[in-house]
Amino acid sequence: MINNKLPKLWHGADYNPDQWLDCPDVLKADIEYMKKAKCNVMSIGIFSWSILEPVEGVFNFEWLDGVIDSLYKNGIYTILATPSGARPPWLGINYPEVNRMDGAGNRYEYNFRHNHCYSSPVYREKVHIIDEKLAERYAHHPGVIMWHISNEMDTNAPYDCLCPLCRENFRAWLKKTYKDIDTLNKFWWNGFWSHKYSDFSQIQPPNLQGEEHSVGLKLAWKRFKSDLLVDFYREEVKTVKKYNPDLPVTTNIMNTFEIDYYKLCKHVDIVSWDNYPNWYSKNDNCEIAVETAFYHSLYNAMKPDKPFMMMESSPSATNWQPAAKLRPCGFHLMSSMQAVAHGSNTVQFFQWRKSRGQLEQFHGAAIGHDGTDKTRIFHEVENVGKALEQLVQIQDTLSHNDVAFLFDYDCAWTLDIIEGFRNFEKRKGFETTLFKNLGALWHLNAGVDIIGTEDIVSGGIALARYKVVVAPMMYILRRGLVEKIEEFVQDGGVFVSTYCTGIVDEENLCWQGKDYYPLGNVLGILYEETDALYDIHENTVEMFGKEYRATRYCELSHLNGAEALGTYKTDFYAGMPAFTVNHFGNGKAYYIAAELEEEGLIKAYGEALKPVLPKEKIPDTPRGVNVQWRYGTDGEAYAFVINYTETPQNISLPYDFDILYGDLTCGTIDKYGVCVLKLK
Amino acid sequence: MINNKLPKLWHGADYNPDQWLDCPDVLKADIEYMKKAKCNVMSIGIFSWSILEPVEGVFNFEWLDGVIDSLYKNGIYTILATPSGARPPWLGINYPEVNRMDGAGNRYEYNFRHNHCYSSPVYREKVHIIDEKLAERYAHHPGVIMWHISNEMDTNAPYDCLCPLCRENFRAWLKKTYKDIDTLNKFWWNGFWSHKYSDFSQIQPPNLQGEEHSVGLKLAWKRFKSDLLVDFYREEVKTVKKYNPDLPVTTNIMNTFEIDYYKLCKHVDIVSWDNYPNWYSKNDNCEIAVETAFYHSLYNAMKPDKPFMMMESSPSATNWQPAAKLRPCGFHLMSSMQAVAHGSNTVQFFQWRKSRGQLEQFHGAAIGHDGTDKTRIFHEVENVGKALEQLVQIQDTLSHNDVAFLFDYDCAWTLDIIEGFRNFEKRKGFETTLFKNLGALWHLNAGVDIIGTEDIVSGGIALARYKVVVAPMMYILRRGLVEKIEEFVQDGGVFVSTYCTGIVDEENLCWQGKDYYPLGNVLGILYEETDALYDIHENTVEMFGKEYRATRYCELSHLNGAEALGTYKTDFYAGMPAFTVNHFGNGKAYYIAAELEEEGLIKAYGEALKPVLPKEKIPDTPRGVNVQWRYGTDGEAYAFVINYTETPQNISLPYDFDILYGDLTCGTIDKYGVCVLKLK
Amino acid sequence: MINNKLPKLWHGADYNPDQWLDCPDVLKADIEYMKKAKCNVMSIGIFSWSILEPVEGVFNFEWLDGVIDSLYKNGIYTILATPSGARPPWLGINYPEVNRMDGAGNRYEYNFRHNHCYSSPVYREKVHIIDEKLAERYAHHPGVIMWHISNEMDTNAPYDCLCPLCRENFRAWLKKTYKDIDTLNKFWWNGFWSHKYSDFSQIQPPNLQGEEHSVGLKLAWKRFKSDLLVDFYREEVKTVKKYNPDLPVTTNIMNTFEIDYYKLCKHVDIVSWDNYPNWYSKNDNCEIAVETAFYHSLYNAMKPDKPFMMMESSPSATNWQPAAKLRPCGFHLMSSMQAVAHGSNTVQFFQWRKSRGQLEQFHGAAIGHDGTDKTRIFHEVENVGKALEQLVQIQDTLSHNDVAFLFDYDCAWTLDIIEGFRNFEKRKGFETTLFKNLGALWHLNAGVDIIGTEDIVSGGIALARYKVVVAPMMYILRRGLVEKIEEFVQDGGVFVSTYCTGIVDEENLCWQGKDYYPLGNVLGILYEETDALYDIHENTVEMFGKEYRATRYCELSHLNGAEALGTYKTDFYAGMPAFTVNHFGNGKAYYIAAELEEEGLIKAYGEALKPVLPKEKIPDTPRGVNVQWRYGTDGEAYAFVINYTETPQNISLPYDFDILYGDLTCGTIDKYGVCVLKLK
Repeated sequence: MINNKLPKLWHGADYNPDQWLDCPDVLKADIEYMKKAKCNVMSIGIFSWSILEPVEGVFNFEWLDGVIDSLYKNGIYTILATPSGARPPWLGINYPEVNRMDGAGNRYEYNFRHNHCYSSPVYREKVHIIDEKLAERYAHHPGVIMWHISNEMDTNAPYDCLCPLCRENFRAWLKKTYKDIDTLNKFWWNGFWSHKYSDFSQIQPPNLQGEEHSVGLKLAWKRFKSDLLVDFYREEVKTVKKYNPDLPVTTNIMNTFEIDYYKLCKHVDIVSWDNYPNWYSKNDNCEIAVETAFYHSLYNAMKPDKPFMMMESSPSATNWQPAAKLRPCGFHLMSSMQAVAHGSNTVQFFQWRKSRGQLEQFHGAAIGHDGTDKTRIFHEVENVGKALEQLVQIQDTLSHNDVAFLFDYDCAWTLDIIEGFRNFEKRKGFETTLFKNLGALWHLNAGVDIIGTEDIVSGGIALARYKVVVAPMMYILRRGLVEKIEEFVQDGGVFVSTYCTGIVDEENLCWQGKDYYPLGNVLGILYEETDALYDIHENTVEMFGKEYRATRYCELSHLNGAEALGTYKTDFYAGMPAFTVNHFGNGKAYYIAAELEEEGLIKAYGEALKPVLPKEKIPDTPRGVNVQWRYGTDGEAYAFVINYTETPQNISLPYDFDILYGDLTCGTIDKYGVCVLKLK
Repeated sequence: MINNKLPKLWHGADYNPDQWLDCPDVLKADIEYMKKAKCNVMSIGIFSWSILEPVEGVFNFEWLDGVIDSLYKNGIYTILATPSGARPPWLGINYPEVNRMDGAGNRYEYNFRHNHCYSSPVYREKVHIIDEKLAERYAHHPGVIMWHISNEMDTNAPYDCLCPLCRENFRAWLKKTYKDIDTLNKFWWNGFWSHKYSDFSQIQPPNLQGEEHSVGLKLAWKRFKSDLLVDFYREEVKTVKKYNPDLPVTTNIMNTFEIDYYKLCKHVDIVSWDNYPNWYSKNDNCEIAVETAFYHSLYNAMKPDKPFMMMESSPSATNWQPAAKLRPCGFHLMSSMQAVAHGSNTVQFFQWRKSRGQLEQFHGAAIGHDGTDKTRIFHEVENVGKALEQLVQIQDTLSHNDVAFLFDYDCAWTLDIIEGFRNFEKRKGFETTLFKNLGALWHLNAGVDIIGTEDIVSGGIALARYKVVVAPMMYILRRGLVEKIEEFVQDGGVFVSTYCTGIVDEENLCWQGKDYYPLGNVLGILYEETDALYDIHENTVEMFGKEYRATRYCELSHLNGAEALGTYKTDFYAGMPAFTVNHFGNGKAYYIAAELEEEGLIKAYGEALKPVLPKEKIPDTPRGVNVQWRYGTDGEAYAFVINYTETPQNISLPYDFDILYGDLTCGTIDKYGVCVLKLK
Repeated sequence: MINNKLPKLWHGADYNPDQWLDCPDVLKADIEYMKKAKCNVMSIGIFSWSILEPVEGVFNFEWLDGVIDSLYKNGIYTILATPSGARPPWLGINYPEVNRMDGAGNRYEYNFRHNHCYSSPVYREKVHIIDEKLAERYAHHPGVIMWHISNEMDTNAPYDCLCPLCRENFRAWLKKTYKDIDTLNKFWWNGFWSHKYSDFSQIQPPNLQGEEHSVGLKLAWKRFKSDLLVDFYREEVKTVKKYNPDLPVTTNIMNTFEIDYYKLCKHVDIVSWDNYPNWYSKNDNCEIAVETAFYHSLYNAMKPDKPFMMMESSPSATNWQPAAKLRPCGFHLMSSMQAVAHGSNTVQFFQWRKSRGQLEQFHGAAIGHDGTDKTRIFHEVENVGKALEQLVQIQDTLSHNDVAFLFDYDCAWTLDIIEGFRNFEKRKGFETTLFKNLGALWHLNAGVDIIGTEDIVSGGIALARYKVVVAPMMYILRRGLVEKIEEFVQDGGVFVSTYCTGIVDEENLCWQGKDYYPLGNVLGILYEETDALYDIHENTVEMFGKEYRATRYCELSHLNGAEALGTYKTDFYAGMPAFTVNHFGNGKAYYIAAELEEEGLIKAYGEALKPVLPKEKIPDTPRGVNVQWRYGTDGEAYAFVINYTETPQNISLPYDFDILYGDLTCGTIDKYGVCVLKLK
């Protein structure tokens, strides 16, 4: 449960009554429609600064009082935003230093949103003033249930700030991180291309008008930017918490890899994120479902003892996607329930009502330009509201899983920066690999917790909690991690590694000498080379009497204790191992050397997981029907069965259960069908 | 007829004798060749400023006197250009303020052509001086038959000017347009993303160094830029008209949507345009023919009581197109006659003679680098000259049509700016839709007048002149237009609408509340949603017992008085209407909800048009053979029959006629064949 | 032989011991491995400036003394680099003027490598100081065998310098080249677009902030930049030669067309280049082999009386290519021997040892991160070392050929700049055409010397040395060249021309009037038009009773003495000649008017070459098996037979020979097999 004030699954939306102040009927009608759609929360004030403070120092809260009061009187709670996501014109124009600066020293003009300089003392001060005013007035309002700090905070929208203050802050960060210039030179391998600095003062951030190639510099800059954003966020939190430390705070995060959300989310009371899958953009919606599951599983695991929130989603077409494709009847329910299945206690969407103009006038909404509840989309939203009421007991459950899936932001950043492997893929195809590996687990119905390795090394997360740990394309093998993995396997755990895993340390220095491949010990292999294929090439892997296509990556290693379960069939490495297992202590370590086609990858993961996971946890289902679990504090188990395909599917589940929601008559689940089962 | 001095169809080219001043034989030879090719006009002086005024204040007109005199003595008239299209080096270098400025405040250096600041008082003054000198000297020369103001005036080649003067002019334009800042905030929907301005002085033009996203701002900036260009143009007209108000002026416009030519052409005496179809760039030349027909029909309709001029075209390869593809024998005649068929009284081409160097040295020309009349292309040009002489009586006829095709530049601009629908297509695929709809009409041989809706609302154009009005993807439904359309249908007209039509008003504010879809009344439908498909998807529409593919756009609406003539077959909207008709007063209103394949679109338009157009006006012809009409003042009717395909085609026409040009022996029209018939 | 000190084929690598100064074991181990791999040269110091001079004026040579001494004691010679390729931080930061400046006047910050201002007096001075220190200390060291000036000198990495000094130098270069402004205006055809300058001071380099379109200006700028680079290089040579004029100098050139290497290589003692074929990036490795052969043949011919050096290559994956694809066993030997076959006396690679960090940490190397000689790649390198020892007698031979293949850098530059033909291909597809034509010759086993036409006109190269001269897409026909070609054919030579050949003079002015196509006389044709096809089109050419596809380019010409050997089959030019021969004096001139498919092109070239080349020089081999020749001073002939395919091939050669290297048992050459034969 998120908050005792509202002991339900939350249903709501971003709501912008400030856009309709000259249409008083709108608020009144909206509240009626909200109640009809069983909405109980609304996010308010996200971009209201130019209305709250139209002229510097002149504040206007009456309209907001009215909105919050009216909602509250009608049983709808407010998630109140600080408006720092978009500054008003007067702020960007009167104080140019709050805008970012480009590499050539040109200050950007006042601009759309987000592109403020996070270092700017002026910006921080002006945000502090408006935040304080809001906190003073609303921190104890009975209708205000949570703070929504800023909005989709971003490091580089649309471009890095390269102002003197940010440059100076970066150098200070470097000094704090590396202590002395020799250490920095060594970690960055600055003998290369004559780049040995003699002093920190010589270092400038990477930029098109300067250094664009130094790997160490670029990685440091990404880390710095992420840290600076967290610092800015924390200052806002401090302001609002002063007035009511008990009112929880969150900030809505996104599906970007550009910010280290592990670090940011240490400072939220509850994790919330904005979920915009691009359904129907590929031939197979399962791929989209897997990508979405990735983010749900990642953000759910960031606070293992709490549910998360899906702060935004689209009830229909998303206007800024390549095509604003409509979603079929029932699809919004399915897409919403995927979040709940993975641990969300809310279904919130953008936006309650379509605006008349500007960039998001065509974004999906409960209420369209006709202003009625007669539309298909309103009906879809209403159905979600009803379902959430039906599932009220779910609020006391959490999603936690037997499989740990390792993922680091540093790894994504570094793969973006280096040159090697499949350069023509963004980040060398890191996401593709992540999603293919997660996809195999998803098709096996094996739910995962996606966790960062820094917390493992520091002891914040104990691997012992898991039965299986997978490390797909975990290019960075942080110092201290291999010991944790070996201990985990020694104690009976199953570890699965893939190509491009364990190559460098966290400074992007290749592991070296006799330790050049630290995972070799647990995997029982001698790694030698990584073949990065062009798309015109492929290999074949024979496993368990069957042949599977291998594309993109094929790694060449030698057995050194491990047993080959699969071997390459062609090219000069025919006969070399492509899938291996090593018995290590009481556990096993698997190595998937190549990018196998889906069926092969499922086969390989099945081989690794099935012996250690209870059969009921990984039931067989038709392709596209997925099962996720939530558990109550007294051991109650709830299975969320969702059919992501466009046809009804027959399923047979190996449990006794009550149906909490949905229909499984004759063992058939409808297209886009959702069933929630409670195990007996 | 354009001008009594030269009562013929005009034939000519851009001619640059100033490039050959050190080869006196060239002018002499050229005149002989011109006469052989039956040329009677030449456009002179377009880029001659650095020769006319090699050093500031030093003028050199002798060579031009000689050229104009020599041509005139040989029966060839001069269309004399003002040279403002490209300034000489001294002007761009000595007066940097005539060059544009980028968003970061950097002034561009002297540059190729066109990129002057239209606000610059210095530039206007220098243009005024040279124009006055030219007008003084040549406005009454018997050989000078028309002014050609500047050349292909453009707003953004290569980039917007963001200098302080342009910024100030823009704010003045905003103040004049919106009067007060509250109105502007409301029209631009500036509550969104905290963008409420408190003063006009806060507004800067959109630019990469500043605001890039505000829809209202970007639309206003496009309108302002177009207006500024018109203002600059009018100042040049004023200068030359002072010396001889009777000498007609034109400026050669292009196939761009970036300038509001409806507004510009209110200030020309005759519309002229530069026509460069990219023949052979697609598998089907009919697509190119339709695109070309679009511009001919648009510019022809801008001055309904006058013919237009095709000021430029290429007699052969166009060197700057993606590939400089040659055109087959006979093709230049066909392409030229398409213009005449649509109302042009001229066939002019670029260029008379290929230059030896610089960017257009390989552009098609009557005279090539061999300098003779022995080439295939010279022969092609000569054939056009002969044809135009044979068609002399056409000069007294005009093209006017029964079908009005609505098109607004604002609509193109807004579709470019907004986010929604098929974002991955430029302007959301507006041109594709325009050309597909026009294509259906073209294949039906239904000629169109392409007209703007502002003139309809203001009363400048009476819809009563037409039998059919079509509004394909007319996203902007200007305030006051729906009443005109309803009146038109009430009185017996046929109206055809498509998807994405009538969504917003002219400020890009969505129509709202009970009026959210103003065309619903006349169409007899309740519009609900627009499905923007990815290219991997399609639907099927059943109409009149046949199935047609539907791609790109499928709109979901409900019958509300209308009758469904076609319905969707698949997806969740199977069974919903895809093509409807509504009886309204004495007329009918059709709604084509989806993007149908060509055959389906022809079927739909045929259904709408055939009952109201005389059968003779829309004769059946083989695919690729097109008929257009011109009419004399005494009712003479001339049919231009053109075969755009690569094979001879059999046709049978339901009239009695005399053949004025071409060959229809045995009812066969040759490949690329042109026949001009005069009805008996 | 390159240098008497080391009378062998050289084997070695780029070596960076300066990256491992804190790991003294590395140097020791490396030397052992080098000896095992039979390496005898190492390139040292290429990017060592920040270690040699960590702070301005403080020098540190001890480590370098140690490295050179240790290598020398172990029989390994040093190719010593000047470190000007990458400046140390202090230089770029303390002296901002050594960095380039962009068009808007912004100075770039200190940056990765290469992007110094070649005009900067400060940069030249600082380079002079460090070069002098190195020369003073090492010019007479017995272990130092050659100077390696700078590294991969480049004109535009990452961008042109547009600083005031470069601008002034450019104007001075223009004055020197064109003498007076009228000549420049004439050559640049500046009447076009009003561009007549009245003074040199008005001219600025082409740039995005200014002039981007003037063809003459852009061509001049490319020439200037290339000349400026040569000037900078020569200043370095002068510095080091002062201390020992006998120590040879080279600079490693690349496969770029941006620098006129004909001019640069007049100032090297031996030509060396860096060879990074992107093997496996296309379906057919033969295409890659032909591209590589192009550069080998070009650089080999630059100093006809000397071998060349392959200064760099990759023994395995190249980390910065689109995909870092591994190469099969034996492939490194094959790829290395291709260089030797074409005249290289060295096989050198980048890099000896993989660095731990930075951009090239994953580039192929003899020693990987494991630091051992146990790897597949080490074994591959060792095999090359052994082969080179076996082939020691080759060091006294040279590659020279009967076929001259004309190629000019100006031609590449001009085709890049102009508009016309197939604009959508970079340089209008010049490389594609070069490689297709060279490919036909390669498949015929006809080795070529690729030579520049300026040397022919000046008399530096006598065409009489050759039996065949081919001029594929030789767009520029330099003044004076046609006479040389006519004389060559007159005297019995065979000349082969293609489409787009001989169109302009060296100022890019079209040949004009009765001389509009100067090659028409020797070819016996009247050229008329060039058809640039879109990729959706093709034609067919019938030759010798067979039909061949023609794509991309089809030229239309008329017979004027020549005989048609092939004719077009379709389109309006069906029946026109597509392949012709003209008897001219004692020789013949062929004209290939269209881009024929490979088989057709081989047929056409075979027709031209076979009668004049000895059959033994162009033996029949299976597709993908290629033969190249080297000759000793006493007439010894060595054939290098290489199988570039993935399957063994049967060959039968029409000579008596001894096998010097490789295996031809039963007439079969292994996949990737290399055989070196010595003719008896």
